[in-house]
Amino acid sequence: MVDPNLQDIVNFERKKPDVYGNAHPKNLLRAIVEDGEYLEKLTNQHIYSADQLDCHTLLQLFRLAAKYEANPGRFSASLQGQILISAFYEPSTRTRLSFESAWHRLGGDIMSITDRSTTGIAKGESLSDVAEMFNNYGDCVVLRDSNEESVKEMMDTLRIPIINAGNGLDEHPTQALADIYTIFKWRPELIAAQPENPIDICIIGMPSKMRTVRSLLKLIAIFSSAFKSVTIVANEQENTVFSPEQKEQLTEQGIKVNVTSSFADSVKRADVIYINAIAWEGDTFKEYGSKYVLSDQTELKQDAIILHPLARGEELCTSLDKTHHNWYFAQARGAVFLRQALLTCLVRRAERVLDIV
Amino acid sequence: MVDPNLQDIVNFERKKPDVYGNAHPKNLLRAIVEDGEYLEKLTNQHIYSADQLDCHTLLQLFRLAAKYEANPGRFSASLQGQILISAFYEPSTRTRLSFESAWHRLGGDIMSITDRSTTGIAKGESLSDVAEMFNNYGDCVVLRDSNEESVKEMMDTLRIPIINAGNGLDEHPTQALADIYTIFKWRPELIAAQPENPIDICIIGMPSKMRTVRSLLKLIAIFSSAFKSVTIVANEQENTVFSPEQKEQLTEQGIKVNVTSSFADSVKRADVIYINAIAWEGDTFKEYGSKYVLSDQTELKQDAIILHPLARGEELCTSLDKTHHNWYFAQARGAVFLRQALLTCLVRRAERVLDIV
Amino acid sequence: MVDPNLQDIVNFERKKPDVYGNAHPKNLLRAIVEDGEYLEKLTNQHIYSADQLDCHTLLQLFRLAAKYEANPGRFSASLQGQILISAFYEPSTRTRLSFESAWHRLGGDIMSITDRSTTGIAKGESLSDVAEMFNNYGDCVVLRDSNEESVKEMMDTLRIPIINAGNGLDEHPTQALADIYTIFKWRPELIAAQPENPIDICIIGMPSKMRTVRSLLKLIAIFSSAFKSVTIVANEQENTVFSPEQKEQLTEQGIKVNVTSSFADSVKRADVIYINAIAWEGDTFKEYGSKYVLSDQTELKQDAIILHPLARGEELCTSLDKTHHNWYFAQARGAVFLRQALLTCLVRRAERVLDIV
Repeated sequence: MVDPNLQDIVNFERKKPDVYGNAHPKNLLRAIVEDGEYLEKLTNQHIYSADQLDCHTLLQLFRLAAKYEANPGRFSASLQGQILISAFYEPSTRTRLSFESAWHRLGGDIMSITDRSTTGIAKGESLSDVAEMFNNYGDCVVLRDSNEESVKEMMDTLRIPIINAGNGLDEHPTQALADIYTIFKWRPELIAAQPENPIDICIIGMPSKMRTVRSLLKLIAIFSSAFKSVTIVANEQENTVFSPEQKEQLTEQGIKVNVTSSFADSVKRADVIYINAIAWEGDTFKEYGSKYVLSDQTELKQDAIILHPLARGEELCTSLDKTHHNWYFAQARGAVFLRQALLTCLVRRAERVLDIV
Repeated sequence: MVDPNLQDIVNFERKKPDVYGNAHPKNLLRAIVEDGEYLEKLTNQHIYSADQLDCHTLLQLFRLAAKYEANPGRFSASLQGQILISAFYEPSTRTRLSFESAWHRLGGDIMSITDRSTTGIAKGESLSDVAEMFNNYGDCVVLRDSNEESVKEMMDTLRIPIINAGNGLDEHPTQALADIYTIFKWRPELIAAQPENPIDICIIGMPSKMRTVRSLLKLIAIFSSAFKSVTIVANEQENTVFSPEQKEQLTEQGIKVNVTSSFADSVKRADVIYINAIAWEGDTFKEYGSKYVLSDQTELKQDAIILHPLARGEELCTSLDKTHHNWYFAQARGAVFLRQALLTCLVRRAERVLDIV
Repeated sequence: MVDPNLQDIVNFERKKPDVYGNAHPKNLLRAIVEDGEYLEKLTNQHIYSADQLDCHTLLQLFRLAAKYEANPGRFSASLQGQILISAFYEPSTRTRLSFESAWHRLGGDIMSITDRSTTGIAKGESLSDVAEMFNNYGDCVVLRDSNEESVKEMMDTLRIPIINAGNGLDEHPTQALADIYTIFKWRPELIAAQPENPIDICIIGMPSKMRTVRSLLKLIAIFSSAFKSVTIVANEQENTVFSPEQKEQLTEQGIKVNVTSSFADSVKRADVIYINAIAWEGDTFKEYGSKYVLSDQTELKQDAIILHPLARGEELCTSLDKTHHNWYFAQARGAVFLRQALLTCLVRRAERVLDIV
């Protein structure tokens, strides 16, 4: 006779809760006409900065991500025979598993390096030589390193594509791509050249110190028509809030930029609230804005959505998880498909998944 | 001209030595009629405790394990497209490779986490958020953690199945399942409702301190008809030998329970001798009962078999390896097939391997 | 509008530069007649020492490697269903990725152990028990350990093949196989029983301290007809330069052996220059011969080629990378195919790739 209390503890549901909202990619799929020619650009570029792709190429990428998300099991042989070198010299499980899951789902193989000290770098080997080694062993590289320059040094020698998965404080382009992908799934009409109702986004974080925010602001500038204003909520002086050019990149595109420490005032006006508290700096992480807390008691617009790159701490209260504002889980889920789309194009397998090649 | 001494050193045999006894699963396969409906229960449960399944479900699991063991190469595509998240936060190679081998043999993909410090947990991320991440990245989780509560905290949020591969001092259910599977392969008649010759099992170990023993005693209670007596050989006071309820769970089922420090007397009367000396406690391991040594000089019943979850130290002498008492290698080998059976059912792929679905 | 400077940084070429010389394996493929019977020997041997195979078997291995290198994508299912246990107890990324890439390219699965402290060895488990565990979980083992005896202890119990990927200061046989494979691709006529123009090889390294050199000298002795002389350039006394028998193994075969500290004089006369500066000793590495530097300013024979097992430091200047002397990248690339050939034979899959079985 099995203990009924135990049954309660061990039983689980597979069905996703409703908090994913209408995160289904169908509407975005319909909103973008497939045009694979733009994806050709992705066959000879490393993915280093959120700045490097134009909005047409990005929309095709989002469409391909939406296609993957709408048909999770269909393309399971797309990357067959391809080897990913997953190099995470800075600790990470979330981003590493996101990339590795994306690659596995499409049938590829993976070699992981999670300990920088096991590499020849410990013996004084140059990153150029490490790159030449990768040329012989794999088809694609994903790299995270607290050293900002590593990815650039390797890009010089690599003849296979590399994705920057976070280089020091600099950038984390695929995270930002996933963020914008999520926003467009939520409101596909924002992809128009002149959207009727551009949105106000409130970012609780430090643009100068968080690579996720740095990359995100660049993409906001590229899709400037979709955004009316960007409000940074930070407890710091404005001159430390932004790195050089960060603010100008937005204002040049006609986006209104505010910096304030008024948390409550800002979040209640925002259509999208993006929150992040942790910046990983070198060997350790630092928390910013620890007095800001989003919870189900926070006054928000009726239809506002919340994004967070995760991992989260106390700044994003679990009381919001079961509300319709929760799009941060959909964001994490969509990131896998966004990475699938990007990886497929980089290793020249897009022809296996596009309708028109 | 190649050095003949070198030839001696480098040549090897592939044939398994006879010490595996008649560990072939054929007899167990014949003894249990397939009834896949019981395995349906395994499609929405986490595997946390040896207590949670009834004997009918367990027998079907053993039958499926025996089917796999009798046909090692046949079902190599059963888990195609499925991703296992192999999270071993407490050091282990044996159990990790056992699960990973099981999953690979059935055609699945694996993502490994072997360093707790690389996870968001190091940044203060909740286990609930880690579980939500796993929901998006994989299809099944195996977790070992010296923190006893981790698996339970994750079970709350997981929408994919998790197997407890060892949580602190608490349980290690699949090890115990492998132990009982081995006993039933040895004597299939013991699965009967009322076996003619129930056995005496002697356990050299600490039920209160060893999760392998804790889980094993629970399964002995479930298959109580097969066991006449359980003798614990320990060099401790009885009140420290058992955790609360451990002894009662057996005596309630009519099994005679003894505690003694008389090693020689106990082992010479036992049909099955189960021995373990190491308990992994937090960061380090502790040895118990180091004065107990089983060797080919130990007086044993003619047909007695020895089980050990391995790794072993001096308590189980290698002089026994080539004797017919050695069923501990068969136990390790069978554990892979037992895990294959369990994993297949958990990710709802049983229909690919059962005769009647 | 995308920043053109950024475009320069992120664009890359896939085409291999010319420095690979005529490293295409075609000529070697034509020079050796396929005779798979010799490869039968590789179905029941561990690969421990460069000494253990005769030249006929080695030539067939090289031919199979050349076949793989000439047709990289063709045999991608050869190792399907096979599991490699990749155990690197001594830090390495290069050799580990080389083996893992080789195995993945042929469709096999991999389980990695990169941290010795997670194994039962930390609990005092014997290597014999670890080997027995491997027998149950995988089909082939690759092992690197700073402990010289580990591989031998495991070989006793293993019933699946193991490749020594570096045991302390002792040997690294597959590296040497890759070195000779590279030399024969460069000059296929050297495989003849009596080559017209045997070569002079100059080794800048320490035969007594570098396992790569130790293994290489053994293979040079096996293919002694191809070599006129071996010159060791070292800044040490001759009695420390060689281990016992190392020099004799060469001179017995009629090869002239010199030891000198005259770097410039030696390299300008050599047909092949093999250079290595780092020996990994236990927990740390030691540099030898740090005053020797090969650069594009070094006087070399017109057609001389340079080999280096990599990782390299300042001893091999990057100014040589774009010259036709650079065969060290081809060496690294070819090593993957050499390992593919060896692994295929060890796990008895050669019949899938040979023309005549």
